[in-house]
Amino acid sequence: MTGIDDLPIRDELRGKSPYGAPQLDVPVQLNTNENPYPLPEPLVERIAERVREAARGLNRYPDRDAIELRTELAKYLTRTGKHPVAVENVWAANGSNEVIQQLLQTFGGPGRTAIGFEPSYSMHGLIARGTGTGWLSGPRNDDFTIDVAAAARAIAEHRPDIVFITSPNNPTGTAVDAGTVLALYEAAQAAKAATAGAIVVVDEAYVEFSHRPSLLPLLEGRPNLVVSRTMSKAFGAAGLRLGYLAAHRAVVDAVQLVRLPYHLSAVTQATALAALEHTDTLLGYVEQLKEERDRLVAELRAIGYEVTESDANFVQFGRFEDAHAMWQKILDRGVLVRDNGVPGRLRVTAGTPEENDAFLDAVRALKKEQSS
Amino acid sequence: MTGIDDLPIRDELRGKSPYGAPQLDVPVQLNTNENPYPLPEPLVERIAERVREAARGLNRYPDRDAIELRTELAKYLTRTGKHPVAVENVWAANGSNEVIQQLLQTFGGPGRTAIGFEPSYSMHGLIARGTGTGWLSGPRNDDFTIDVAAAARAIAEHRPDIVFITSPNNPTGTAVDAGTVLALYEAAQAAKAATAGAIVVVDEAYVEFSHRPSLLPLLEGRPNLVVSRTMSKAFGAAGLRLGYLAAHRAVVDAVQLVRLPYHLSAVTQATALAALEHTDTLLGYVEQLKEERDRLVAELRAIGYEVTESDANFVQFGRFEDAHAMWQKILDRGVLVRDNGVPGRLRVTAGTPEENDAFLDAVRALKKEQSS
Repeated sequence: MTGIDDLPIRDELRGKSPYGAPQLDVPVQLNTNENPYPLPEPLVERIAERVREAARGLNRYPDRDAIELRTELAKYLTRTGKHPVAVENVWAANGSNEVIQQLLQTFGGPGRTAIGFEPSYSMHGLIARGTGTGWLSGPRNDDFTIDVAAAARAIAEHRPDIVFITSPNNPTGTAVDAGTVLALYEAAQAAKAATAGAIVVVDEAYVEFSHRPSLLPLLEGRPNLVVSRTMSKAFGAAGLRLGYLAAHRAVVDAVQLVRLPYHLSAVTQATALAALEHTDTLLGYVEQLKEERDRLVAELRAIGYEVTESDANFVQFGRFEDAHAMWQKILDRGVLVRDNGVPGRLRVTAGTPEENDAFLDAVRALKKEQSS
Repeated sequence: MTGIDDLPIRDELRGKSPYGAPQLDVPVQLNTNENPYPLPEPLVERIAERVREAARGLNRYPDRDAIELRTELAKYLTRTGKHPVAVENVWAANGSNEVIQQLLQTFGGPGRTAIGFEPSYSMHGLIARGTGTGWLSGPRNDDFTIDVAAAARAIAEHRPDIVFITSPNNPTGTAVDAGTVLALYEAAQAAKAATAGAIVVVDEAYVEFSHRPSLLPLLEGRPNLVVSRTMSKAFGAAGLRLGYLAAHRAVVDAVQLVRLPYHLSAVTQATALAALEHTDTLLGYVEQLKEERDRLVAELRAIGYEVTESDANFVQFGRFEDAHAMWQKILDRGVLVRDNGVPGRLRVTAGTPEENDAFLDAVRALKKEQSS
């Protein structure tokens, strides 16, 4: 029987498994940082309406440049990000994963390297590998903040072409301040001064849940800075796969050299536009989730767990001698959380109040078991 | 003002332009091989219905493995392709471009090469470049069929990791017979016998329009063979961006090592499933378009043009001393065709009878002008 290893796959793929959290049928799913609130029914209707309209022209290719969608995303960023963003500064793709892949194809690739400060969003490194970009793992402090001096030294030494800064960071929930981004941006430009500098990507997938404002204003005067975003979390639309970036227009022009033509379908564009019409309602859910996130942090601490400060819609908690065994015990009580491989820690997504109660009941009971 | 060249883009991207036909506002658009028939209204309604349903769960990630969709695609291939195909043999992505990109990431990439027989679908070479795969341009005969002996020699000499065979070929319309594919498959395996052989991709984007049957039955016993397909043409759904492949299940397992997780949105899956429910109606349009294609071939020849045999929904015609000047003259008469850069030739998509009449009137008038 022919298997993967009998095929002429690339050597670095041999023995690897596809990325992805286990998709298990469990009553309470708090493992992939999804928004627990289904889209409101008026928005569901609006999506059906806009997709019906798009379907009437589905025999034609979609708007290759997604002008209407990028215009509305720019308006959203301008309104919420305290920084004016125009259509020329925005690019959209199938999930922020595809945005990141396009950035790596444009500015990374064979013979080039990217750095991230780990633990962080593991797809950065995986997509780097998928695009032939070398991957460097940079340091963090014990509290999961970025060790700025050590990070700057790593950048000076390895001279990466791309620097990833995730804020709030996944899976730790840690926000990054403007000073850190500026220091690493300067370090990255200095290290690559001989060529045209380095690209710094601030991944703000979870920024709407943060206590801090977006780092978008840092784009001013920094053509090598990119802020990436998604509609998967705050917009409650993980199933839509719509990621986007804001940057200098030259960056937007550059990624178009590698984007697959017509990469963004007419139904995706129509659905995203419908969701953007309902921004205020959706951001209302974000406020509820922030309160629930803060409640999770407080209650987990009250129970006696060690909890990392969180600016996202999830919380990292521990410590466990065997985090995977603990993950299984929580799962046995009907709650699916995430084991991201961070030693001694697990990650739980902020769900509805009822889901969070179910989770807290489970870990409270486990804590008691453990102490008795 | 910062421009692309001030950014640290990859050297091979410098001076390049994004791929894509000019999107011009012209009455008769016969330039991108779109299906001219809008989806029937009952299908439009069904799409709205299925997307409404999907939108109610849009806060969750989509089925990462797209099982229902791949099952229905497998049934379609089994029914029309005279070869049994199961869900494990099918993979789907955002357009056949993304399918091809995933194949190149898995089996090509840095240090590896791919070959195509040109002129052919230019995205094969462009996606190869985007994935760091070396690109080799193989030969064709003067009538645009593949020169099998020369192709086999090129394969033996350059030992490519991936061989692209487009049938029917774009932009020429030329179908490839099973014997040619078998000869090149054997040549490719022989050339790479030391390492696990080479992958041969038969791109059948236009096969539903062909006089010949699909080459799917060749998959039997050939784990290194891949057939790629799309819903953009025969299914009249270019705006949907749904491409797929059929192959040995090991190939399907292998591309999952590089696919971006959750690459296929819930709305894309829902829309494609709706379209597959209406397969018979959509294939009815294909029959009409085949007749129109044959009429275009006959009438262009009657007018005095040289026409390449076509098995697709488009026709290559010539010869012109200056094909681009002729393209402009046809455009001046309100008809947009395609200049693919094949010397002395242009390509016209088979549209509705009225669109084809408008095109034929234009080129008939230009022929008269030229002779007078």
